[in-house]
Amino acid sequence: MKNIDVCPTPELLHLYKLEGKIAVVVDIFRATSCMTTAFAHGVAKIIPVAQLDECRALQRQGFIAAAERDARKAEGFDLDNSPFSYMHPDLRDQTIAMTTTNGTLAITRSTAADQVVVGSFLNKRSVVDHLRAMPNDVVIVCAGWKGKVNLEDMLFAGAVVCALRNEFAVEDDSALSALMIYEAAKFNMIKFIAGSSHVRRLHGLGLARDIEFCLREDLYDVLPILDGDALVRHPHPGRA
Amino acid sequence: MKNIDVCPTPELLHLYKLEGKIAVVVDIFRATSCMTTAFAHGVAKIIPVAQLDECRALQRQGFIAAAERDARKAEGFDLDNSPFSYMHPDLRDQTIAMTTTNGTLAITRSTAADQVVVGSFLNKRSVVDHLRAMPNDVVIVCAGWKGKVNLEDMLFAGAVVCALRNEFAVEDDSALSALMIYEAAKFNMIKFIAGSSHVRRLHGLGLARDIEFCLREDLYDVLPILDGDALVRHPHPGRA
Repeated sequence: MKNIDVCPTPELLHLYKLEGKIAVVVDIFRATSCMTTAFAHGVAKIIPVAQLDECRALQRQGFIAAAERDARKAEGFDLDNSPFSYMHPDLRDQTIAMTTTNGTLAITRSTAADQVVVGSFLNKRSVVDHLRAMPNDVVIVCAGWKGKVNLEDMLFAGAVVCALRNEFAVEDDSALSALMIYEAAKFNMIKFIAGSSHVRRLHGLGLARDIEFCLREDLYDVLPILDGDALVRHPHPGRA
Repeated sequence: MKNIDVCPTPELLHLYKLEGKIAVVVDIFRATSCMTTAFAHGVAKIIPVAQLDECRALQRQGFIAAAERDARKAEGFDLDNSPFSYMHPDLRDQTIAMTTTNGTLAITRSTAADQVVVGSFLNKRSVVDHLRAMPNDVVIVCAGWKGKVNLEDMLFAGAVVCALRNEFAVEDDSALSALMIYEAAKFNMIKFIAGSSHVRRLHGLGLARDIEFCLREDLYDVLPILDGDALVRHPHPGRA
């Protein structure tokens, strides 16, 4: 039986073996929700980078550059970290260089995995179907917030574990914790998540609409996958 | 309002500020349950050490030595990590040197706090009453398992957060996660915890009796507190 595990924050990644596995990177508010939305609207590639400097260098090379720090758009960049910003028709077939406080870092730290895919509530079903079809064990890598565990990423991890619990072994306590959090929250995720630290942070910035959108399930049938240094849209999810 | 936070594993302690706060160290299965039981049965002092070598050196100096690795008694030591081993009348007024896989390490890493106390379900009420009476913010430090998060320590953290939620600010997502796990489990903790990785590990070693005992609440009115290098029984919980 395949195994599914949850790494609650990239800060604990050194305790997880990624080799041979699929890493599902999740940063619900909002990096991986943005990436999913971008590919659903025809973006060709996203280059995730950890540092603002790298992103700026790619911007100088002519790429569209998206940068977020502390939930705000960083000075001098083209795009912020709201999923609504990635729906614009001008982005079709473009390549975007992106850096965010937590999400892009989680991707660049997960490259020891056989395959790195991007998960969000928006493409949950695509992620689940892909994991079901592939032969690999799975680690869901929660991006968290500056090294700490956050509620919304654990909630998504729990939703995926819940969907796959009859087909995958769920042995690790982090996966069990995520599952319990999801079970407690699934009937009213918006209310449930209202007390989370990041939601309070985003509300303070007037981003309630983003929160609601990022919790919508199965809106897009796309699976972003890391191909070399860039994320692309997986042409055939469920095939290696 | 005072703040209560939860550090899910000592591996994340560098992200938490302990200065000025009370650290409640918890390793339900079984180090902090053993410590609580020991003081309730008249042990005078427990010297927590991180390494087997340090523990062996203290044994050579004449202390009773307790050592656990991977849930078993380490070769050549006097006591294992079962709470029942700490009820013996011969231990009264003695000093014990102790090292365990996770719990003692969590204590030795928490010394930046103003005060380090030991928590378990067995002395939960004493811990809660003490935190209520003291002026300090609180961080509950879960010992986890070899750096990873575990369910039973988060469960205890959630129980303490639940008891104090009207008097303390609960702002961090780890504290909220612990609270949710406790809310989901509180009516049948033994059944709930049955799937946890450590419980399976202990069951495999025939330690079901230990598990059940460690989940009993408010059995002992004692509060172990770190005084220099050794834990002692707090003479007056609720006073600095």
